[in-house]
Amino acid sequence: MYRTHTCGELRESHIGQEVTLSGWVHKTRGLGGMTFIDVRDRYGITQLVIDVSKNPDLNEPAQSLGREFVISVTGTVIERESKNKKMSTGDVEILVNKIIILNKSEIPPFTIEDNTDGGDELRMKYRYLDLRRNPLQKALELRHNMGIQVRNFLHNQGFFEIETPYLIKSTPEGARDFVVPSRMNQNQFYALPQSPQTFKQLLMIAGYDRYFQIVKCFRDEDLRADRQPEFTQIDCEMAFVERDDILNMFENLAKHLFKSIKGIDIDYEFPKMQYDDAMTQYGNDKPDIRFEMKFNELTEKVQNKGFVVFDNAEYIGGICAEGCATYTRKELDKLTDFVKRPQIGAQGLIYVKYNEDGTFKSSVDKFFDAEQLKTWAEQMNAKPGDLLLVIAGIKNKTLSALSGLRLEMGKRLGLMDNNKFAPLWVVDFPLLEWDEDSKRFHAMHHPFTSPRPEDMHMFDTDPGKIKANAYDLVINGVEIGGGSIRIHDKDLQAKMFKALGFTKEEAEEQFGFLMNAFKYGAPPHGGVAFGFDRWASLFAGLDSIRDVIAFPKNNSGRDVMIDSPSKIARVQLDELLLNTIEAKK
Amino acid sequence: MYRTHTCGELRESHIGQEVTLSGWVHKTRGLGGMTFIDVRDRYGITQLVIDVSKNPDLNEPAQSLGREFVISVTGTVIERESKNKKMSTGDVEILVNKIIILNKSEIPPFTIEDNTDGGDELRMKYRYLDLRRNPLQKALELRHNMGIQVRNFLHNQGFFEIETPYLIKSTPEGARDFVVPSRMNQNQFYALPQSPQTFKQLLMIAGYDRYFQIVKCFRDEDLRADRQPEFTQIDCEMAFVERDDILNMFENLAKHLFKSIKGIDIDYEFPKMQYDDAMTQYGNDKPDIRFEMKFNELTEKVQNKGFVVFDNAEYIGGICAEGCATYTRKELDKLTDFVKRPQIGAQGLIYVKYNEDGTFKSSVDKFFDAEQLKTWAEQMNAKPGDLLLVIAGIKNKTLSALSGLRLEMGKRLGLMDNNKFAPLWVVDFPLLEWDEDSKRFHAMHHPFTSPRPEDMHMFDTDPGKIKANAYDLVINGVEIGGGSIRIHDKDLQAKMFKALGFTKEEAEEQFGFLMNAFKYGAPPHGGVAFGFDRWASLFAGLDSIRDVIAFPKNNSGRDVMIDSPSKIARVQLDELLLNTIEAKK
Repeated sequence: MYRTHTCGELRESHIGQEVTLSGWVHKTRGLGGMTFIDVRDRYGITQLVIDVSKNPDLNEPAQSLGREFVISVTGTVIERESKNKKMSTGDVEILVNKIIILNKSEIPPFTIEDNTDGGDELRMKYRYLDLRRNPLQKALELRHNMGIQVRNFLHNQGFFEIETPYLIKSTPEGARDFVVPSRMNQNQFYALPQSPQTFKQLLMIAGYDRYFQIVKCFRDEDLRADRQPEFTQIDCEMAFVERDDILNMFENLAKHLFKSIKGIDIDYEFPKMQYDDAMTQYGNDKPDIRFEMKFNELTEKVQNKGFVVFDNAEYIGGICAEGCATYTRKELDKLTDFVKRPQIGAQGLIYVKYNEDGTFKSSVDKFFDAEQLKTWAEQMNAKPGDLLLVIAGIKNKTLSALSGLRLEMGKRLGLMDNNKFAPLWVVDFPLLEWDEDSKRFHAMHHPFTSPRPEDMHMFDTDPGKIKANAYDLVINGVEIGGGSIRIHDKDLQAKMFKALGFTKEEAEEQFGFLMNAFKYGAPPHGGVAFGFDRWASLFAGLDSIRDVIAFPKNNSGRDVMIDSPSKIARVQLDELLLNTIEAKK
Repeated sequence: MYRTHTCGELRESHIGQEVTLSGWVHKTRGLGGMTFIDVRDRYGITQLVIDVSKNPDLNEPAQSLGREFVISVTGTVIERESKNKKMSTGDVEILVNKIIILNKSEIPPFTIEDNTDGGDELRMKYRYLDLRRNPLQKALELRHNMGIQVRNFLHNQGFFEIETPYLIKSTPEGARDFVVPSRMNQNQFYALPQSPQTFKQLLMIAGYDRYFQIVKCFRDEDLRADRQPEFTQIDCEMAFVERDDILNMFENLAKHLFKSIKGIDIDYEFPKMQYDDAMTQYGNDKPDIRFEMKFNELTEKVQNKGFVVFDNAEYIGGICAEGCATYTRKELDKLTDFVKRPQIGAQGLIYVKYNEDGTFKSSVDKFFDAEQLKTWAEQMNAKPGDLLLVIAGIKNKTLSALSGLRLEMGKRLGLMDNNKFAPLWVVDFPLLEWDEDSKRFHAMHHPFTSPRPEDMHMFDTDPGKIKANAYDLVINGVEIGGGSIRIHDKDLQAKMFKALGFTKEEAEEQFGFLMNAFKYGAPPHGGVAFGFDRWASLFAGLDSIRDVIAFPKNNSGRDVMIDSPSKIARVQLDELLLNTIEAKK
């Protein structure tokens, strides 16, 4: 037997017992004739004491131990002289009478500590060592617990988890598919699913009425920070429901997770915000509402006063940064530099200091006097001591730049506390987006999203104005999930494909099976999918999804630990009837 | 609101309430001025009554209803005149005052009944209609419940479910991989996992100590009945354990599933059978021990008595079929034909009838007298009335043929009751199998399986004799799962790769990451993986795994519903730097 207890288990009540522990050597230190060893497993750390004067046989193994050796030790639990209140096992130690070295270890390339000395690349290559660190173990435990809680909640609500296939069909819509050549069906390919969307709709047509799945999805996109080629969704669908049935169900799921995972009671209804309001007030379809700082449009008020930047702008708007009137010139210059970064994209920044003494100082004093500036301040609910920050330009770009500025000010003002959570439903997204390049509409969510019932009539007249019966769950400015009521009528679906520029033949070839299924009694249905990686990293208080994924890929889609992807043998290519074309340099 | 209740919910206690139900029209029939409609959802069927004389407005919609139309109806729950005790809702019906047709249906290509008139191919093409049938809904519900029970059991035992990657690395060992061309890493490929084997071992090295995952796996093999290119494993691994720690843990999981899913208490320890005994007594490494009928070897007893078939045989053995001495000549001829089928592969069948009156009648009366036959009967524990069936030939083939014969006789004698379950651990498999074609050893399980500690010394002297520290869980002759204690020592792993004919370079290239990980403190570990599809189909009492899979593929690996795999666009191939080679006819 390798162990009677884990390394996180022993307490004062165990004093006097003989126990066996197994784990990794975390630290060793000698002190007089004694050797102290910290042995670690995922449950904790326990201190071992070797008294060589009493057990001379232990001298040699004790001396040979290095960091990360795997050992099994037997001994007696004794009270510790100097108790360590920071450790759950800190009241006791084990007086060892037997050590077995189960496996040796070379010196690890970085320390196995909460704050390791290993760089990102090294930690990715030795991921199995990185995963020994406590923050990662806690993150994966949290993720596991979230999975259990999601499943039990939905199970108790009558949902079935039903597995949908991974080897499916490539469709050129949406993001790029990963494809899988078929050997048995020559020159043909499967695709890996970007989501189980069509299958969950088929399950609704099949009468399953409450489906969910925690499932891997795949997108062959160029990777940005926090994107992985494979990611996990909590995918859900319900039949015989209207929008608010779905919002209620999954708001309750979210509340259950807040309570069971974070210990947070949310006793209010999540606010709902129109997409249009989110865009005009926060410049963003996933506003972080942990803090207010909404935009105020000044366009009409400030134009035609002789300031050409304003007069040429399509939109002028600003935010009020509380208590920032004391910002120095240098700080304001830095902020200006910030908004001019290409990621933010503003041309410049106008400031108005509403000083504590009631006076105004602005970068546009030449064009606006104190009285005028005061009307700005009033519109923006500013008090003496506040700072108004204004951007002007093309509407969309300006809203987006203001959004970046707002988040930056939120961060500077400490308004984005990781332990505070502000959930929000964003609703009534546009159904279609006009794409100037291809001169056609794209589906903002996907082609199966239903218009709002009251907008249905605009399909033939003004499709760009139709709002979708779609919704996103946003927490702290992170899009945690989204969904919609789906189209379940074959004629409406055909109309939708037509609006998206599909020919009848294209629609038939790609989605014929779904259109066909709609002919045999499709019920009204809708659903939602949550990004499990993101939700877990939000709850874990981590900035990146990587650390809630055991074996993530790097920004080139590589697993540097197993060195994948890699070349495959010619015989494999032959079986698949494939030739590779040499890459151009 | 689409419904206040489901179609399986209403009872006498609801009489008098106004309710709204939604579902599919299962059946309609007229009777006088009344129309009766059975409306169905996954929870059950409820009878609707339309009294056109009272509600003339309902006449038109009621008349237009066809099978599988989706409707929403409102009405009053009333007591049924002729109660249907077979239906859970059979005490009541709904007197309808409002019908909304939510969607129409064309006439479905087969009936939505327990015993449908649809052939396999048609049902696969319209899988969403097949899935409406009650047996499939029950099978998927059972599978879902098994998943919930597995997860909660393992969670309570301290296991974490940890997701391992799907885009991994191709290794030529084992079955054929599905590969995924990488666009970002030109001319390189990922592979889809055949199992998470190496990743779960890395998780043990990373200190997670109790891991599981219900996970899709992929094998590009030629499909036999009951094989799917993608299948689901319950994949588990533990560190700091010996074999029996694992067997105990997962025997308890199995018992928990028997109890929670099937309502069966198993209060005994699962028997353990040596692989060698399974082969000599049942001719099979997954014996069905719902019934005895073990083999008896007769080789020494019956040779050199002048019967050339016996004298030339390497092995002669038989089984005793209780109470079958009355078999007619015709029945015995049929059995002979059965064993001569290529799937069974015997040259012929010898019978000995031990008649009720104590006399013997055999097909070898020329060579053996009654006294001699009586000694056969004694050895085989036969009683008057029993039938001995004997096969002779090359040992391996004869054992295998006897196994086929035994199962056939078990079926004929009604000894294979689907409601009886006989679990069994088969242990001590050979570590290596000699392959005559390649003149080298193959790993019987996989190259990470540890030898039994007591056999370790034979690695250099007689590797073919080493038994693995491996085990299978067999229920009713079905291999439900298997696993082993793994190698955790880098030198032993190197020895194993050498025994399997890997050069150092090949081992390094394919499994270098694992060998490397073994250098940094790998703990002793082992695990098991269960075939979830098979286990679910066994519990569902189904012969095929297809009906516990929502969207299975056919024997050519095709999804005929979505028509996949399929050709992909030239632009997709270009991005992947691939050309297809035209298939030879």
